[in-house]
Amino acid sequence: MPSQPDRPSVAGVAVQPREDGNLSARIAVSATTAQGAQLRTEDFRGWLAERGRANTFRVDRIPFAELIGWSFEESTGNLVHRSGRFFTVEGLRVTEEDGPYGDGPYAQWHQPIIKQPEVGILGILVKEFGGVLHFLMQAKMEPGNPNLLQLSPTVQATRSNYTKAHQGGDVKYIEYFVGPGRGRVIADVLQSEHGSWFFRKSNRNMLVEAEGDVPLLDDFCWLTLGQINELLREDNVVNMDSRTVLSCLPYPDTGTGALLSDIELLSWITNERSRHAVRAECVPLDTVPGWKRGESTIEHEAGRYFKVVAVAVTAGNREVTGWTQPLFEPVGLGVAAFLTRKFAGVPHLLVHARVEGGFLDTIELGPTVQYTPTNYAHLQGKDRPRYLDEVLATAADRIRYEAVHSEEGGRFLNAESRYLIIEADEETAPLDPPPGYAWVTPAQLTSLVRHGHFLNVQARTLLACLEAAGVRAR
Amino acid sequence: MPSQPDRPSVAGVAVQPREDGNLSARIAVSATTAQGAQLRTEDFRGWLAERGRANTFRVDRIPFAELIGWSFEESTGNLVHRSGRFFTVEGLRVTEEDGPYGDGPYAQWHQPIIKQPEVGILGILVKEFGGVLHFLMQAKMEPGNPNLLQLSPTVQATRSNYTKAHQGGDVKYIEYFVGPGRGRVIADVLQSEHGSWFFRKSNRNMLVEAEGDVPLLDDFCWLTLGQINELLREDNVVNMDSRTVLSCLPYPDTGTGALLSDIELLSWITNERSRHAVRAECVPLDTVPGWKRGESTIEHEAGRYFKVVAVAVTAGNREVTGWTQPLFEPVGLGVAAFLTRKFAGVPHLLVHARVEGGFLDTIELGPTVQYTPTNYAHLQGKDRPRYLDEVLATAADRIRYEAVHSEEGGRFLNAESRYLIIEADEETAPLDPPPGYAWVTPAQLTSLVRHGHFLNVQARTLLACLEAAGVRAR
Repeated sequence: MPSQPDRPSVAGVAVQPREDGNLSARIAVSATTAQGAQLRTEDFRGWLAERGRANTFRVDRIPFAELIGWSFEESTGNLVHRSGRFFTVEGLRVTEEDGPYGDGPYAQWHQPIIKQPEVGILGILVKEFGGVLHFLMQAKMEPGNPNLLQLSPTVQATRSNYTKAHQGGDVKYIEYFVGPGRGRVIADVLQSEHGSWFFRKSNRNMLVEAEGDVPLLDDFCWLTLGQINELLREDNVVNMDSRTVLSCLPYPDTGTGALLSDIELLSWITNERSRHAVRAECVPLDTVPGWKRGESTIEHEAGRYFKVVAVAVTAGNREVTGWTQPLFEPVGLGVAAFLTRKFAGVPHLLVHARVEGGFLDTIELGPTVQYTPTNYAHLQGKDRPRYLDEVLATAADRIRYEAVHSEEGGRFLNAESRYLIIEADEETAPLDPPPGYAWVTPAQLTSLVRHGHFLNVQARTLLACLEAAGVRAR
Repeated sequence: MPSQPDRPSVAGVAVQPREDGNLSARIAVSATTAQGAQLRTEDFRGWLAERGRANTFRVDRIPFAELIGWSFEESTGNLVHRSGRFFTVEGLRVTEEDGPYGDGPYAQWHQPIIKQPEVGILGILVKEFGGVLHFLMQAKMEPGNPNLLQLSPTVQATRSNYTKAHQGGDVKYIEYFVGPGRGRVIADVLQSEHGSWFFRKSNRNMLVEAEGDVPLLDDFCWLTLGQINELLREDNVVNMDSRTVLSCLPYPDTGTGALLSDIELLSWITNERSRHAVRAECVPLDTVPGWKRGESTIEHEAGRYFKVVAVAVTAGNREVTGWTQPLFEPVGLGVAAFLTRKFAGVPHLLVHARVEGGFLDTIELGPTVQYTPTNYAHLQGKDRPRYLDEVLATAADRIRYEAVHSEEGGRFLNAESRYLIIEADEETAPLDPPPGYAWVTPAQLTSLVRHGHFLNVQARTLLACLEAAGVRAR
């Protein structure tokens, strides 16, 4: 130990506890508040429908040649915008070595991928009314949504959006999330988007509590978590951006323990990251084997996975009369499911360490099952993806949660998945899971999701739905 | 809530607490145990010298033409091994946009970089003797160390090493870290290596507690944390791999709070990650401007940064009579320093969100100052790196910790830095720090380092030295 005396502390400077002991209890209160102080749940449908009438939109498929500002770059075949902004569709080559030490089975594949290197903000503003936290949600049209209009976060802005906003632009409520006057941060973390469709895309997921009055603008409404959780049980109401932000909420840990301690869980994740050697490189789109480009679609030779298509959007009530853009359109309805079991009375979920070509760091934790069944219809027996057939054959009385949700409607067309939480037993999902799978508690997922790039976007959707499913420990 | 009853729990399955409440106290005990049960501190020097005599090595500089198995690839100029193994020296092009929204100043640079995509294991085995945790350290020669022999972790293995080990190879003690029979995990996390010299290199940092007897092999010794901390106050004894592993130790949090709550700190990090847009791409080494290749070195035109050189290693006591390899040799002594202040009696460190071209995700937290002063000797006034001159001019009575340590001797030749922890005051380091800097507590750094890619390797060295510096809260 050094011998010199401590220098004096700064007068009047206070430190604070590292955690706000009150916050998770306030979140729990909002989750059990079924009726909002602002918009009643029974009035919500009417309000959303009214917003739909006030914001008329039309989306039409068009051939690539009718895209305005977009074209296939001559030297690469990449689909690009002439401004260099927005995103590009390029090729991706992925090589993967598995095995206990990354020295096992070798796989390689090629695919089109969306490259959009900028970090956007997905933010939900939170405020107390009558002592209960309410969340400011927005009725927002996105061209890829099957029903166009869904509930989005308060702010859903690309960096170009909010940079412009900073210069006096038009992203509503952005000032609550960036800059000196912002509110009290509840969550703020970079999370991955779909690793099968995006190359290393991440967005900033934020929840911020406002201090003082907040003006309520058209297309926005305040809802309690209890109300949102009720809407999460319906198909295609709460959009993906909302779900991923909500997954970052610090729900309380009831302190009931877990099969794996936290360090055992982190060690398992580290091992999964280490044993998968993944190399993903962008390549010219016109060099991608197995995919063919037509006048209106780029598609896989066997009709699997997804198509790249183009749409024209006509907005009825805006200065902007419309725009055109490419979208990715999956070929079938996806399935994303957590198997759940109680061990010593504590609910656990079976996570899967998934490689997706666009992830920043080899693997993230996904649901037990995450597949588009039609892509695997040609496979038999042991080549079938693990747990998929069990999930597809689940009896109704074992389904704790089921809803169809769509993925980000600004990039994906009709990208719907059945999200499920299913009770399992020792026969279907043993206590000692196969390699690549682990049993974790909801509280452990809530701790992991604070740090980013641990849970993929499908797992985050299901994490956001746990309260709606009644699967959290009490 | 669903109405079906809960299915029965599995009989006889127990959950455990998420955290081992005892562990950090046991670490604190080891840190205050100045004398080991195995090797006395006063005998350590003699033991290390004896190990040096038993392991004689010679390292000679050679021209690139005398490298065996290594050559400059014709089409790219990259320096590669004919087996495709080990690592390559390639070019890197980095573009960076800063500013509040990544729309600010723009910088671009080129440099040589080491590409070694595989994940190695750095592991220290831990075991109780007389109720006190001891750490199994190895006397290990590395060609780049100025004094060749330093204390390394129990295991320091590339993936090729331990894959071979798995097949019956020769990495000593590896079975305690991988595979079914391994011990109880204390830490296990992927951490970055030097982002200025390595392209996205990470290693698995592990601490594992052995159960049962452990044979003590030549070149190994058991030391308490108190003994290791004493050695950390000396120059060039504890090697970089040991320091980064030790930085992952879960030292106890005394619960005294912090200037920023944890979520405010995470939010600040997320903001720093978002506002820096960094694009780093490997390019052919012979296209890198500003660097010239001679017979024995690749160096910067102005003599700055580092040189790529080649050495021949002759091992006196081995079957392997020797090998040749390239190394990176920095041009001068580096300085890595944390400024520290107490706020409300709680020690804080001033971290810097640093962009290094080889980082996986834009920024990691580094020390307040991390520069090689000779690289900046040509700069004046406001172009000088922030805090550098204050650190270089520090009066002796403000230095809480000072030692010269070297970086990884398997890749870097004579890469020494002065590591410092310096008491600051409101004048040199105000309570409200400039953009890119934040005050955090040692306990907060210990929480962050669990999750990987938050602290760079220099900050981790200083974190490992905090106990030696007496800067942790009590």
